[in-house]
Amino acid sequence: MRLGSIEAGGTKFVCAVGDEQFHVLDRTQFPTTTPAETLAKTVAYFKQFEDELDALSIASFGPIEIRSQAPQYGYITNTPKPNWPYTDFLGTLKAALNIPIYWTTDVNGSAYGEYVALPEAQRPRSLVYFTIGTGVGAGELVNGDFLGELGHPEVGHVRLKRHPDDLDFAGICPYHGDCLEGLVAGPTFEARLGKPGVEVPLSDHVWDIMAYYIAQAAVQETLMLRPNKIVFGGGVISEPFMEKIREQFAQLMNGYAEVGALTDYLTMPVVPENGSATVGNFALAKRLLG
Amino acid sequence: MRLGSIEAGGTKFVCAVGDEQFHVLDRTQFPTTTPAETLAKTVAYFKQFEDELDALSIASFGPIEIRSQAPQYGYITNTPKPNWPYTDFLGTLKAALNIPIYWTTDVNGSAYGEYVALPEAQRPRSLVYFTIGTGVGAGELVNGDFLGELGHPEVGHVRLKRHPDDLDFAGICPYHGDCLEGLVAGPTFEARLGKPGVEVPLSDHVWDIMAYYIAQAAVQETLMLRPNKIVFGGGVISEPFMEKIREQFAQLMNGYAEVGALTDYLTMPVVPENGSATVGNFALAKRLLG
Ligand SMILES: Nc1ncnc2c1ncn2[C@@H]1O[C@H](COP(=O)(O)OP(=O)(O)O)[C@@H](O)[C@H]1O
Ligand SMILES: Nc1ncnc2c1ncn2[C@@H]1O[C@H](COP(=O)(O)OP(=O)(O)O)[C@@H](O)[C@H]1O
Ligand SMILES: [Zn+2]
Ligand SMILES: [Zn+2]
Repeated sequence: MRLGSIEAGGTKFVCAVGDEQFHVLDRTQFPTTTPAETLAKTVAYFKQFEDELDALSIASFGPIEIRSQAPQYGYITNTPKPNWPYTDFLGTLKAALNIPIYWTTDVNGSAYGEYVALPEAQRPRSLVYFTIGTGVGAGELVNGDFLGELGHPEVGHVRLKRHPDDLDFAGICPYHGDCLEGLVAGPTFEARLGKPGVEVPLSDHVWDIMAYYIAQAAVQETLMLRPNKIVFGGGVISEPFMEKIREQFAQLMNGYAEVGALTDYLTMPVVPENGSATVGNFALAKRLLG
Repeated sequence: MRLGSIEAGGTKFVCAVGDEQFHVLDRTQFPTTTPAETLAKTVAYFKQFEDELDALSIASFGPIEIRSQAPQYGYITNTPKPNWPYTDFLGTLKAALNIPIYWTTDVNGSAYGEYVALPEAQRPRSLVYFTIGTGVGAGELVNGDFLGELGHPEVGHVRLKRHPDDLDFAGICPYHGDCLEGLVAGPTFEARLGKPGVEVPLSDHVWDIMAYYIAQAAVQETLMLRPNKIVFGGGVISEPFMEKIREQFAQLMNGYAEVGALTDYLTMPVVPENGSATVGNFALAKRLLG
């Protein structure tokens, strides 16, 4: 069995072919340029494997249309990314490749990858995957299925209680100002301090402020979904920063809902090197084959 | 077919017997006193119908244990209500009545009632039911099933962005201070203004502040779950107040996620006279019979 994965990010595309144990057999990546050029490269890559490939899954940046009855099912919709609004991503791939293709969001792909990467007996049937990178979003798996019927979740844009030492920061979300993404996405370091996050030591108080907001988002997910696990990925996340997030989470929750050991509940990805979405795509492609 | 409903609130119990069209055939209510007395009255009520009753459903105040594998499955757990912590509610009923019994939260019962009360063709598979009364909580139905595997949701305790005109109010939640419940439950009127909400005219600015918080909770649910409908019940809610909530919701969302007409999306209950949980219980009891 051969399975394909497209991880379509706003900066780069990662395409891969794997086997039914979800091992990567071949992999390529290229920058996200125009839809015509980028999708042509994607198709050309998979054409090489046309005879062997059984199914494929796409985990895409968004917003995307996921309602299978909608006229624009399979499109990237009103994205702020130039050239990409209303691109028929799934349709382009389907026209070129005569195999079943799964279509979901980038964060759902990662959530699914983290779910299947765990040994079967340990798999939490409900899991949330947050990315805190250039943008902020979450994929939510509940009882083995993704949440979102009217559309995919947009967890990046929830409002939060402001940190008392951060009341002057307006936030950077073009739609909402100080929503979660507006307060903790990677580029907020430049907006708050005039330099990138990688140059800001963990001893800087801004990291406590960030941890407070991210912990609130984890509390929201906990109180609303009661998932078994919340995984954090993306460039802003590191293990020492996770410790700060766990501390703030414990304070905010104040023992209200049982979640077990925080080192198991709030974690970094199990799949190394940002590979969660690739593994998730392989598994979602395999699931299409029944 | 005869179906039983127990709506177990912190103030009163409502017990009813209905038919398979969910019509109420008999109904009683009594105050919530000690567990021994209240559950004895409950059992005595249903014993009258023992020969005809096919199944029963309990929608209870909480927190409750809903994990069917947990040793305390069927208990009311660490409730602040005197005498009630760690009461084996379901076990008491099962010992007395030899019929299938469904066990869920009060708000899940109401959510299910609102779901089945709609004509079949119009039933939204995903629906959230908020109660804004003495306490605040929500039941969440996603694709026809309740959310919550590790435990039931506790949506009443999410944190919110504070309203600029309300920064001095500490909130009344004993666990968190200014969580949703701490900011908008009925008794916040007494805490803010020294008089009950029923005496505060809708022109008072406090209603705008309340609407802002409740709208934020609706935005959180929308961005996290993408439900098809959000229903609001409880003593604090009225149709003119719903209009304020809709206005605030539109401003906060700022067109970010499509939800259709707000008068259909954010609504009061369809079932009249606080009957949602009774209808929900009848339907959940019937579902047990397959
Ligand atoms: N060590 C770091 N500390 C804080 N922020 C970082 C760090 N490394 C990268 N970032 C920020 O993370 C963002 C990139 O996130 P990443 O997940 O790598 O990519 P993307 O979200 O674009 O897929 C950038 O805003 C970058 O400045
Ligand atoms: N018209 C009203 N305006 C504002 N608050 C009200 C109004 N009527 C009742 N309340 C408040 O609602 C709460 C009771 O809510 P209700 O849903 O009736 O009961 P419970 O939540 O106890 O089941 C009380 O705090 C009461 O003061
Ligand atoms: Zn936003
Ligand atoms: Zn609280």
